[in-house]
Amino acid sequence: MIAPEEFLEDTRDQGLKELEEFLRIPSISSQPDRADDVRRAAGHLADRYERIGLQNAEVIETAGHPVVYADWLKAPGKPTVLLYGHYDVQPVDPLELWTSPPFEPRREDGVLFGRGSSDDKGQIALHWQAIQAWLRTTGELPLNVKVIAEGEEEIGSPNFEEFVRTNRDRLKSDYCVISDTAMVAKGFPAITYALRGLLYFELRVEAANTDLHSGNLGGIAPNPAQALAAEILTSLKDPAGHILVPGFYDGVKPLSEEERQQFARVPFDESAIKQTYGLTALHGEAGFTPTERNWARPTLDVNGVWGGYQGPGAKTIIPAWAAAKFSCRLVPDQDPKAVAQALPRYIEEVRPKEVRVSLSKLSGHGDPWITPVDHPLIQAGQRALHRVYGKDPALIRGGGSIGAVEVMGRLLDAPCLLVGFVLPDSFAHAPNERLDLESFYLGRKAALHLWEEIAAIGAPAAARPASVQP
Amino acid sequence: MIAPEEFLEDTRDQGLKELEEFLRIPSISSQPDRADDVRRAAGHLADRYERIGLQNAEVIETAGHPVVYADWLKAPGKPTVLLYGHYDVQPVDPLELWTSPPFEPRREDGVLFGRGSSDDKGQIALHWQAIQAWLRTTGELPLNVKVIAEGEEEIGSPNFEEFVRTNRDRLKSDYCVISDTAMVAKGFPAITYALRGLLYFELRVEAANTDLHSGNLGGIAPNPAQALAAEILTSLKDPAGHILVPGFYDGVKPLSEEERQQFARVPFDESAIKQTYGLTALHGEAGFTPTERNWARPTLDVNGVWGGYQGPGAKTIIPAWAAAKFSCRLVPDQDPKAVAQALPRYIEEVRPKEVRVSLSKLSGHGDPWITPVDHPLIQAGQRALHRVYGKDPALIRGGGSIGAVEVMGRLLDAPCLLVGFVLPDSFAHAPNERLDLESFYLGRKAALHLWEEIAAIGAPAAARPASVQP
Repeated sequence: MIAPEEFLEDTRDQGLKELEEFLRIPSISSQPDRADDVRRAAGHLADRYERIGLQNAEVIETAGHPVVYADWLKAPGKPTVLLYGHYDVQPVDPLELWTSPPFEPRREDGVLFGRGSSDDKGQIALHWQAIQAWLRTTGELPLNVKVIAEGEEEIGSPNFEEFVRTNRDRLKSDYCVISDTAMVAKGFPAITYALRGLLYFELRVEAANTDLHSGNLGGIAPNPAQALAAEILTSLKDPAGHILVPGFYDGVKPLSEEERQQFARVPFDESAIKQTYGLTALHGEAGFTPTERNWARPTLDVNGVWGGYQGPGAKTIIPAWAAAKFSCRLVPDQDPKAVAQALPRYIEEVRPKEVRVSLSKLSGHGDPWITPVDHPLIQAGQRALHRVYGKDPALIRGGGSIGAVEVMGRLLDAPCLLVGFVLPDSFAHAPNERLDLESFYLGRKAALHLWEEIAAIGAPAAARPASVQP
Repeated sequence: MIAPEEFLEDTRDQGLKELEEFLRIPSISSQPDRADDVRRAAGHLADRYERIGLQNAEVIETAGHPVVYADWLKAPGKPTVLLYGHYDVQPVDPLELWTSPPFEPRREDGVLFGRGSSDDKGQIALHWQAIQAWLRTTGELPLNVKVIAEGEEEIGSPNFEEFVRTNRDRLKSDYCVISDTAMVAKGFPAITYALRGLLYFELRVEAANTDLHSGNLGGIAPNPAQALAAEILTSLKDPAGHILVPGFYDGVKPLSEEERQQFARVPFDESAIKQTYGLTALHGEAGFTPTERNWARPTLDVNGVWGGYQGPGAKTIIPAWAAAKFSCRLVPDQDPKAVAQALPRYIEEVRPKEVRVSLSKLSGHGDPWITPVDHPLIQAGQRALHRVYGKDPALIRGGGSIGAVEVMGRLLDAPCLLVGFVLPDSFAHAPNERLDLESFYLGRKAALHLWEEIAAIGAPAAARPASVQP
């Protein structure tokens, strides 16, 4: 009997063909006229899971696009891992910028072009192929696996929380593994162990019941746009980027020297960033590198502002009201509830008394997420990647939030490992999305080893230190 | 031969009928389908001027609606006065709120209802009737008169400056009289001797060439909405309403004790203002009454602000750019040119260096206007009003700007007298616009005396003190 590694070597082309078949289904979740294709992709994936030897494969309905589920639970005494991916894809416009049709996969010079090739069908495929390698060669997996593939990730996972809540028992696992992120560079893998949480607010400042004539009432009437801009927003953050809301930084975990060193391994090309986005200079708190600020420091940003006259030419009014949207990215261990309470209290304090303010929270829980960098699950991931790439993966955080991670972290109380096998410049969400084939093949191998390494750390009762943050 | 006063008494009803005839023409300048009516009103007025004995009556073309001109220049050695009014009116919607059709004048309990009855056809009519009284009874006027009636006042006088420039010789006069303002209250007339000027700007603050992901770049990228609000707008004005642009207050004429006393004669009902506009409190510089702040202090107000995401729900972007419109009301003797130069210099200084700003000026010259309160022309107006109303008129200023006044002041270099004969609550621009008939009859008398009193001060070579501000 051949070893799983050999099986993977022998089925390179077969694996790629299977992925290409999956890529041909235009499962664009945001477009209502693609709903049938999304469903077809779900059915296709459930079939695939059955064919490779997973059990209980099922297309589970939600209020939106379905979730695909399958499991293999025949390793008593071994840990159980929940593996997450998503089978929906982004729209393809502008279509004219594609060099070949987005849903007709094309190979060229070691690259596979096609929508979803990296985000996220390629990563789903490399996992099923690693699982298949185990089952075909040894007849078993080193641990228990529950696989889910979401169909609404690209539209913000509107039904995922309800899905997890409803299926909590079925999904219950010791660990989660999510492959929807990227490597640092070709041959340089990364493990993401923390993400920021998001609190999003809309603030409305009102002074009058109608726009006022700036001649007749200028010097008499309060100006809510002025109050919003020059008194409230000004009070939230100083020009250096430090947030002024009392208590805002409570609980922020300082970065360890080890974390800072890990971050510094990831190249940050300031001049490339500036050129790409047309920035004159970067901005942020002193004492931190840009990467540290983005990954491990909380932020507060105005996302939009509007009020009064915005058309061409001049209209001499004092606006009746003005509004802003602003949001905070929170880091471990900030408490989103405490921040959400501190903000309105502070705004009430700093607002000029001649305006009325209303603040609404537009986001959900907003919890930041972290699996401590020294957690055995992270170490298992490191070992698996080291075996394949011959170097330690970067241990990184993310500046954004991933809805599914936040939901699983909060509702399933299991530590998560975020590990991706695609290149950062794979044009996800853009024309000519691509998959580097060498990275794909290495990813299949790493996925293979991952189950072994996680099996080795055992169930969490033993593995989990007191400091774990679910 | 009867005296002019007697003629006015004898022709009360005739005068009202003539006004009603004028009011029946729906000369709404803003509505293209009323262009013929506007032209008909101009022709009607030119006819009227001929019939009462004025000469050289003419409908003078402009790039928009025409100006009506007529004169009587047979008083050699006497001053020449340019009398301004406008024959166009506001639209009438919402029509359903009118208790009778807006262009079918209706008398009830000493009040005449109809669009234009106060603003400004009623005031044009009382002047022609006073002129007619002089000419019919004495065969002459006490001085030389040039009458103009504009047809685009209600749409912002877009062609008036060009008209004055083109006809500067024809319009050349020693004094201007404008009747398009209101009294303080019934029986309490007012002379307006100063108006504020207007400078209007649009400011755009840009940091990136595209909206940025607030997760991926939050803590790294500058936020132009934050820069606009919390750094630039904040730097323009302090919370108490004091403008912080260096040199902004240069030239501001302090109010004399006499002026403050005059202002204090005009009732200011703070609780009524608050209730009407839904204000919680008034706002403005300490050390000045609301009236003083509105009439004699410069202001800076944000008129509009926009940038980033303004739709429903949350969009987690750092906007590429944000913009604001803001404007300054200037008072005598601020120099608009100096302010227009100081502002961009100051913004360039206070802007964060990681954003790019562009400031455009959207307004014209912006000159404030004043005829010194002790000018003989003002005194002549005071005497004329005192003769009719038995009390001194209030000497007031205005917080807004009147385009025609600014243009005539700047291009014709003649002091202006602003005197109105209608009540402040005449519902100009609103449904059920009305004219108080007793005020109309008294206004005709005051207009009669005005020519006598101005004739008495003689030509400006003698009358004009060194301090006159054209």
